[in-house]
Amino acid sequence: MTTTEPRAEERDLDFDVFARACPSRGTLEHVTGRWGGLTLGALYEGSLRFNELRRRVDGVSEKMLSQTLHALERDGLVHREAQPTNPPRVDYELTPLGREVAERLLSLIRYVEGSMDTVLRARERYDETRGGR
Amino acid sequence: MTTTEPRAEERDLDFDVFARACPSRGTLEHVTGRWGGLTLGALYEGSLRFNELRRRVDGVSEKMLSQTLHALERDGLVHREAQPTNPPRVDYELTPLGREVAERLLSLIRYVEGSMDTVLRARERYDETRGGR
Repeated sequence: MTTTEPRAEERDLDFDVFARACPSRGTLEHVTGRWGGLTLGALYEGSLRFNELRRRVDGVSEKMLSQTLHALERDGLVHREAQPTNPPRVDYELTPLGREVAERLLSLIRYVEGSMDTVLRARERYDETRGGR
Repeated sequence: MTTTEPRAEERDLDFDVFARACPSRGTLEHVTGRWGGLTLGALYEGSLRFNELRRRVDGVSEKMLSQTLHALERDGLVHREAQPTNPPRVDYELTPLGREVAERLLSLIRYVEGSMDTVLRARERYDETRGGR
């Protein structure tokens, strides 16, 4: 990072997830994709090893978790720390940017969890109406 | 809604997106899926007709937008209002619950858009390191 580079705040109008080709759309998908979101949420509680993470993100396959972690690491949201032990131990943790993103995502997740009674009632009403037509 | 029903706030510990079978995981996917998130974001600015929405959510097909709207309507996040005009006119708008969800989602989207310079630099570093191994 050099001091002559424009800061993110000055350039954020350049990026627009509504535009098909904008790279922010890909990052948003890494963050909100089925496994990306749950991985960020799990790591918000602290650093975890691969197998700990796999247990926490119930239902994820080894392959999918590995791909998810690579995408999040590449975007600078997750840091991968390999310890020089035998057997080698690898920890995953959020970067400062990853923490900021995870905070906003968790606020959304908690709101959705807390609204599920309303959602399930809406589904019942919808299915009754559509079924009765 | 009856007064004897427990309110969402009292029961939100019942729902957990980290659990594979929890219905909140499905709703989170409708909200954060590629097209669901952009649709909620677009409707946050006001009600839109199908074709207006399709133009705003750059890249979505007619079929995918239709499926996305059905899922969001079924979850009680989007309201579909058919006007008795000729030709019929159909407007889509957020429900109060949809607005709350969209607000949290937009906070995440704006943060990601504003962080893309950092993300793109992280990607460059990652690709250089991995390419050089």
